[in-house]
Amino acid sequence: MDYKGAGVDIDSAGALVARVRDLARSTYTSGVLSDIGAFGGVFRPELAGLDDPVLVASADGVGTKLKVAFAAGRHDTVGVDLVNHCVNDILVQGARPLFFLDYLATGALRPDVSAAVVAGVADGCRANGCALLGGETAEMPGMYAAGEYDLAGFVVGIADRRRLVDGRGIVPGDVLIGLPSSGLHTNGYSLARRIVFETLGLGVDSRVDELGCTVGDELLRIHRSYLRAVWPAVEAGLVKGLAHVTGGGLTDNLPRILPPGCSAHIDRGAWRAPPIFTFLQARGDVPTADMYRTFNMGIGMVLVCNRGAEPELLAALAEAGEAGAVRIGTVRPGAPGVAYRGADGGP
Amino acid sequence: MDYKGAGVDIDSAGALVARVRDLARSTYTSGVLSDIGAFGGVFRPELAGLDDPVLVASADGVGTKLKVAFAAGRHDTVGVDLVNHCVNDILVQGARPLFFLDYLATGALRPDVSAAVVAGVADGCRANGCALLGGETAEMPGMYAAGEYDLAGFVVGIADRRRLVDGRGIVPGDVLIGLPSSGLHTNGYSLARRIVFETLGLGVDSRVDELGCTVGDELLRIHRSYLRAVWPAVEAGLVKGLAHVTGGGLTDNLPRILPPGCSAHIDRGAWRAPPIFTFLQARGDVPTADMYRTFNMGIGMVLVCNRGAEPELLAALAEAGEAGAVRIGTVRPGAPGVAYRGADGGP
Repeated sequence: MDYKGAGVDIDSAGALVARVRDLARSTYTSGVLSDIGAFGGVFRPELAGLDDPVLVASADGVGTKLKVAFAAGRHDTVGVDLVNHCVNDILVQGARPLFFLDYLATGALRPDVSAAVVAGVADGCRANGCALLGGETAEMPGMYAAGEYDLAGFVVGIADRRRLVDGRGIVPGDVLIGLPSSGLHTNGYSLARRIVFETLGLGVDSRVDELGCTVGDELLRIHRSYLRAVWPAVEAGLVKGLAHVTGGGLTDNLPRILPPGCSAHIDRGAWRAPPIFTFLQARGDVPTADMYRTFNMGIGMVLVCNRGAEPELLAALAEAGEAGAVRIGTVRPGAPGVAYRGADGGP
Repeated sequence: MDYKGAGVDIDSAGALVARVRDLARSTYTSGVLSDIGAFGGVFRPELAGLDDPVLVASADGVGTKLKVAFAAGRHDTVGVDLVNHCVNDILVQGARPLFFLDYLATGALRPDVSAAVVAGVADGCRANGCALLGGETAEMPGMYAAGEYDLAGFVVGIADRRRLVDGRGIVPGDVLIGLPSSGLHTNGYSLARRIVFETLGLGVDSRVDELGCTVGDELLRIHRSYLRAVWPAVEAGLVKGLAHVTGGGLTDNLPRILPPGCSAHIDRGAWRAPPIFTFLQARGDVPTADMYRTFNMGIGMVLVCNRGAEPELLAALAEAGEAGAVRIGTVRPGAPGVAYRGADGGP
């Protein structure tokens, strides 16, 4: 008996490593000192111009959006989702990404699928100017169903300590600016899948007129990166707080950056939730409060600024190509939390 | 229908977050600037004394050693395995760890199990002096079998660029020093499990006289961290190359650090492989070449040094508490690769 007989094919893994190496190289920035194949990746951060350099790191996964990718046989977008999600998570602290590492686990290695997944990761890294510094592709017989895999990622960014964004300066009277999401991003898929695939019996190839596309196209829309749009405003010191609207929706994510005595008041009428959200709510008979605590409802990122800085912030966002920025509410005195008014009659 | 109905319990996840936060806090070093709950963890590296600071990062998983933990219902050691594995992977480049992030994915959240896993991660972090800076606990209904989970980790360390260890200076005549492993560490479990559980029909509670313990005890022995033993020698500049003996064994890992023109010649008679390896080879009828390309065979870390530096290196290792260091071979002219002699009559 040998290792291959036990379900692990080191040679086939070796061929994949060569493809992954080329993909990783396509993302290399000037900071990368090592090539893939060493035990760890080596990165030399540019520290010039930083008074007090700090590292900001985050780990995340793609969640059950992967199940939609499996059903659609489309494996080259979930990696972009993953990178963008991680990049947004450190952006909201005021950091720009330096490098990324991925973890891809399967039951039986299918090199073409794995290469497509990593190609997506590399696409995401290039688009965000961060290097794919390393990663792990694990073949774990008996752990994953045939054709399935899990994907996690890890990003490290850098910031100047005095420029970190942490929401501490937020006060009543501040303004909440929302940036549009592209769809579900990577949150709420367990509920969305249940409604779409189980309750409605649709498949990834089913076309839904309300959505203007197939279920697969809608549910695989790529999680946006807000780096390009938001970074100039961060550098200009225009934002006091940033919230990435992920699992838990606006309801759970906004309070993460609110200091004591500050409550977020959201006017649901300020923007129009994209059709996928109204579709899921109606067909799934989901209470409004659950919608806002599960999905991003069309707002993927929230910026908090002084009322007086709002025009300058909106101009900086527009300059960076973000045309859809909209004031979605204000900060008022109260316990940290989110109060909604407008359409749907409150949570 | 709501999110809980779809298999994701945000409230129960919230309770777990509180326990994880306490575990993470127990690992905090002076560099940690943020508390868990922010979107990303913030770490201020101590740069004083470093001429040209570089970051070294690595991602890894535990592999199907997890399956043994599931069978044994013992969830608090795999996290230590994971941290130690990652720490060794950057140690071999000459870096000491700063911080760690974990990714834990399950089908249905079992807070006690998840907390035990993270407790192991925190134990590993404390023992290696690195902070558990963040992580992700993902509940993915339908992705994992009941009672199962996957666990991955990411470590970031720091080094002075001119002190990086990369094997480039290795020349024929250099000496290979091996450090003992504690058992299988985290590699070769798919093959080991097949032999032990399928071929032999043993269970985790079966006692095996040759091993002097139960199957579960043997297979869950913790992957050693070599940081404490090896770091003084790295700081003293005594090592020219370091190889962590992971998947692929000595056969695949030693060549990763050998420059062109250098071949590793290993004398298998120089150390005695622990009983688990002879047990697996005999009962699984595994060819010797496969054994050395699948398992660590009792050597978890290899250090390469000048012949003249050998006594000083062995003394530094002994001083650091590493009594079992042994010369396992030498570097000779040849193509990068490993040639074996001694017991078993060659590969």
